[in-house]
Amino acid sequence: MKFPFQTVALIGKYKTPGITEPLLRLAGFLTEKGLSVVVDKLTSDHLERHDYSEAELDEMGGAVDLAIVLGGDGTMLNIVRTLAPHRVPLVGVNQGRIGFLTDISLDNMLPTIGDILEGKFVTEQRMLLQGSVLRNGVEVFKALAFNEVVLHRGNTSSMIEFEVNIDNEYLSTQRADGLIAATPTGTTAYALSAGGPIVHPALDLITLVPVSPHTLSNRPIVLASKSVLEIAMNRAGDVWLHCDSHSSFQLEENDKVVIGRYAEPACLLHPVGHSYYHTLREKLFWNKAP
Amino acid sequence: MKFPFQTVALIGKYKTPGITEPLLRLAGFLTEKGLSVVVDKLTSDHLERHDYSEAELDEMGGAVDLAIVLGGDGTMLNIVRTLAPHRVPLVGVNQGRIGFLTDISLDNMLPTIGDILEGKFVTEQRMLLQGSVLRNGVEVFKALAFNEVVLHRGNTSSMIEFEVNIDNEYLSTQRADGLIAATPTGTTAYALSAGGPIVHPALDLITLVPVSPHTLSNRPIVLASKSVLEIAMNRAGDVWLHCDSHSSFQLEENDKVVIGRYAEPACLLHPVGHSYYHTLREKLFWNKAP
Amino acid sequence: MKFPFQTVALIGKYKTPGITEPLLRLAGFLTEKGLSVVVDKLTSDHLERHDYSEAELDEMGGAVDLAIVLGGDGTMLNIVRTLAPHRVPLVGVNQGRIGFLTDISLDNMLPTIGDILEGKFVTEQRMLLQGSVLRNGVEVFKALAFNEVVLHRGNTSSMIEFEVNIDNEYLSTQRADGLIAATPTGTTAYALSAGGPIVHPALDLITLVPVSPHTLSNRPIVLASKSVLEIAMNRAGDVWLHCDSHSSFQLEENDKVVIGRYAEPACLLHPVGHSYYHTLREKLFWNKAP
Amino acid sequence: MKFPFQTVALIGKYKTPGITEPLLRLAGFLTEKGLSVVVDKLTSDHLERHDYSEAELDEMGGAVDLAIVLGGDGTMLNIVRTLAPHRVPLVGVNQGRIGFLTDISLDNMLPTIGDILEGKFVTEQRMLLQGSVLRNGVEVFKALAFNEVVLHRGNTSSMIEFEVNIDNEYLSTQRADGLIAATPTGTTAYALSAGGPIVHPALDLITLVPVSPHTLSNRPIVLASKSVLEIAMNRAGDVWLHCDSHSSFQLEENDKVVIGRYAEPACLLHPVGHSYYHTLREKLFWNKAP
Repeated sequence: MKFPFQTVALIGKYKTPGITEPLLRLAGFLTEKGLSVVVDKLTSDHLERHDYSEAELDEMGGAVDLAIVLGGDGTMLNIVRTLAPHRVPLVGVNQGRIGFLTDISLDNMLPTIGDILEGKFVTEQRMLLQGSVLRNGVEVFKALAFNEVVLHRGNTSSMIEFEVNIDNEYLSTQRADGLIAATPTGTTAYALSAGGPIVHPALDLITLVPVSPHTLSNRPIVLASKSVLEIAMNRAGDVWLHCDSHSSFQLEENDKVVIGRYAEPACLLHPVGHSYYHTLREKLFWNKAP
Repeated sequence: MKFPFQTVALIGKYKTPGITEPLLRLAGFLTEKGLSVVVDKLTSDHLERHDYSEAELDEMGGAVDLAIVLGGDGTMLNIVRTLAPHRVPLVGVNQGRIGFLTDISLDNMLPTIGDILEGKFVTEQRMLLQGSVLRNGVEVFKALAFNEVVLHRGNTSSMIEFEVNIDNEYLSTQRADGLIAATPTGTTAYALSAGGPIVHPALDLITLVPVSPHTLSNRPIVLASKSVLEIAMNRAGDVWLHCDSHSSFQLEENDKVVIGRYAEPACLLHPVGHSYYHTLREKLFWNKAP
Repeated sequence: MKFPFQTVALIGKYKTPGITEPLLRLAGFLTEKGLSVVVDKLTSDHLERHDYSEAELDEMGGAVDLAIVLGGDGTMLNIVRTLAPHRVPLVGVNQGRIGFLTDISLDNMLPTIGDILEGKFVTEQRMLLQGSVLRNGVEVFKALAFNEVVLHRGNTSSMIEFEVNIDNEYLSTQRADGLIAATPTGTTAYALSAGGPIVHPALDLITLVPVSPHTLSNRPIVLASKSVLEIAMNRAGDVWLHCDSHSSFQLEENDKVVIGRYAEPACLLHPVGHSYYHTLREKLFWNKAP
Repeated sequence: MKFPFQTVALIGKYKTPGITEPLLRLAGFLTEKGLSVVVDKLTSDHLERHDYSEAELDEMGGAVDLAIVLGGDGTMLNIVRTLAPHRVPLVGVNQGRIGFLTDISLDNMLPTIGDILEGKFVTEQRMLLQGSVLRNGVEVFKALAFNEVVLHRGNTSSMIEFEVNIDNEYLSTQRADGLIAATPTGTTAYALSAGGPIVHPALDLITLVPVSPHTLSNRPIVLASKSVLEIAMNRAGDVWLHCDSHSSFQLEENDKVVIGRYAEPACLLHPVGHSYYHTLREKLFWNKAP
């Protein structure tokens, strides 16, 4: 991480009406502080005219020292996958309700970002997963996931069947709607809906969560992040591999899915005093009188 | 139910090797007893030559007094949906392991069927569901389900969103992988994998079980069988309606799904002494030392 | 139910500060309408001086036509158990947050009660359970439950083991923290925390919910309300029977617990337009943006 | 670990009939190999006369190089807690059915132990927890747990309420039957029954699992093993702290429970080729045709 930050990327959830004002306000604030601003091209196309420089998201990785995302967790998720390989630290500003990844509110945006520029922040490393597909020994698909890699049935009306191996050792043959391999970040997303545990995001772990498993004792398993999963399709059928609900790939019989930790972690910057437990309480409605 | 039985339909899981011998043995046994035997056409095509009369499954409903199914629960499920509208009582013979629906073992087949022919049986009525789809007010799909009617995402990588109404009253707007409406029979099938309760099969109830719901307090609900569900699609996406993993239909935005009890129950005949709880213990591995 | 109502019992959650004002306001309102008011003795002891007649709760059953409870669901629960045997219809007024049983808010109390006195109400019958304990064939304990009858370990640090029979048929031998037999009313209380389904309160059903069962496939079961459960203690240990967290009884080895539906249902009166699904949404935080 | 082993402790599940023969056979085998044998005093009291030396379990810690336990996982659990502080490596021999901790079968006992004496073994470090109670700032209870530290209601019929802090940060105020803090070893024990995930035993993690929580979104959380939990009792009531169902302590209002990793891990020796996943499949009935 290059600090002090000099060049800052701004990315917004461009479909959101009203993103122009706060994004340009933030751009002005950064410029006044003497920093260079680069606006994501796709975001920029949805803004009013402005004079800031623009760049495609997947080209700005090597050129910026910091990325600030205005939007929800979904927006942040997409940006992380693209910028993590370039080790760009990320800051998330939510537009209304606190997110797991976007913990700065619009109301406090300028003073909080100001603090961060002065070095008042907490750095958090979070692991990503990589999912790939081997067909006859050849890699035919590869994608990163910040939340989860999911094997799931598609249009078929029946459960799918697959064999799970961990570190070259046989775990079990499973019949289910699917199987989720979640990062700690992803354990408060889809994996939680499927019955998985919450894993503290500072940990490096892979959590396997079966989706509607036929065997009732087939329960979530928490594994070391260095573990490598291999999943073999036992039967034909309409089966898909999804990385973060973003990249999807249709599997064929005898395909082998390989899932493991991606080498580079994402780097999130939080305001000093940021509390993961506070976010949990807010998002999960804990401590509300029932 | 016409008793004593005079004409008996025989249906086998035709893909199973070795079905010929027990099925023809049973046919011979019934003929000796003076009953007429009708073999399901599809089953017959997979048998060796024989001299019994044949009929298409969907044409034999009005012509037979009893149907005997050799196979597993899956085979039985398909036959029930076809014959239940004709009020044909059904008997299930399993081919190895006890099933929830096929409770007579091959070993005891002849004496047990003999007893049933003499009136030594227990009759059980089980409800079915009917799922239909309205598009612009026109019914574009309708099918019966003995286990469950399922609304489920297809190839999409995201949860689906839909609005559930019960008896014209709003229940909730749900985000999930899907929603299961299960008969009591279906509560030990897919609904159980998705976290639903077991409902005694003698009851008339509809059990709603969300599949991987986004809201963690969105739990299974047990409703009166007279309740009528209406599910409205809120968003476009690849969403399907499945009846018993058998009939599937792709939904469009603004389609309305209607689910309710089918007028005719299925009629299953069990040997005297049949125990549902015994089957539960066997199927769910209860009372095995862990 | 005697209608029009002539004598009305008033019962308050007497430990709540501020109960005096609304309770006396309600008493005045009823008196003006020409009805007789009887205040529960225990409640009365916590009120300021007043001139209304008083009676012990367990003596007013035969003397009142209607009971109005001011408090939360917990208060209502206790009153229902006492008055249900006398077929006294009940109305619940909550003191802040909507309850499953107390669905009238303090703000609308007078006009809503006024409507009810004029016959504008919906009647709802809800089943109760009765739990009893047989020791050497002699009944040594018996109590009603409006929510649930619970078998649970006490101070012991280990799971308890017991044998469950339903209608004189063996179900299973279970090791667990306990076993809940819930009424439909109780399915949104403790049974829900233990993983049970929600059962519509208009139904007559008994829901068995194991608490932390050793066997993972030991799942909640929904049974006909006419079913009678017998639970036999297999081993000594500190085991208790609780009825509604109200009446508790310590079991001994070889005790037999019998649980079945109580003959008289409770009769709840709701304002016209009352919606159970609305209450579910409120209490379970459905439809809150997450 | 001192290797080659010279002095070996033998401990048996002394209440099991038939323990004498294999235990003395093993003692003879070890003696023949030139090793010294020390038999646990409590075990010895239940054996026939023999000439091996004896010692109290809690005194042999510093004197033996290896401990071999004949029994089930429960026996092993107790021995681990006593010997782990002395860094004595442990080997477990089951007496019938494979255990998570006792993975050597009686049939292969002698050759497998023979291999272990020759250094053919796999070493596994497993973390323990320590639970303690502070009353007015004074420690009034302290115990080790190899499976779990559990806060649980006793004879009370109501849920308990407590406040959970992690590393001096507030997590939440919970109402529940209890709260489990499990080691990875303990995640396949009580914590699994309460809905927790399986955590690979080679990991160093603390898994918090609420027991029947009132808030449905109060889900299991996986934390770093260095985390320290503080639980404060909010209300009086009959509340207990249990360490491994072995040491129990009754809490009072305002007591503070502190739970953290114990400094010394347990050291288990497994035969070469030992497979945790194989044990999981066996214990949880995976891959049984349903």
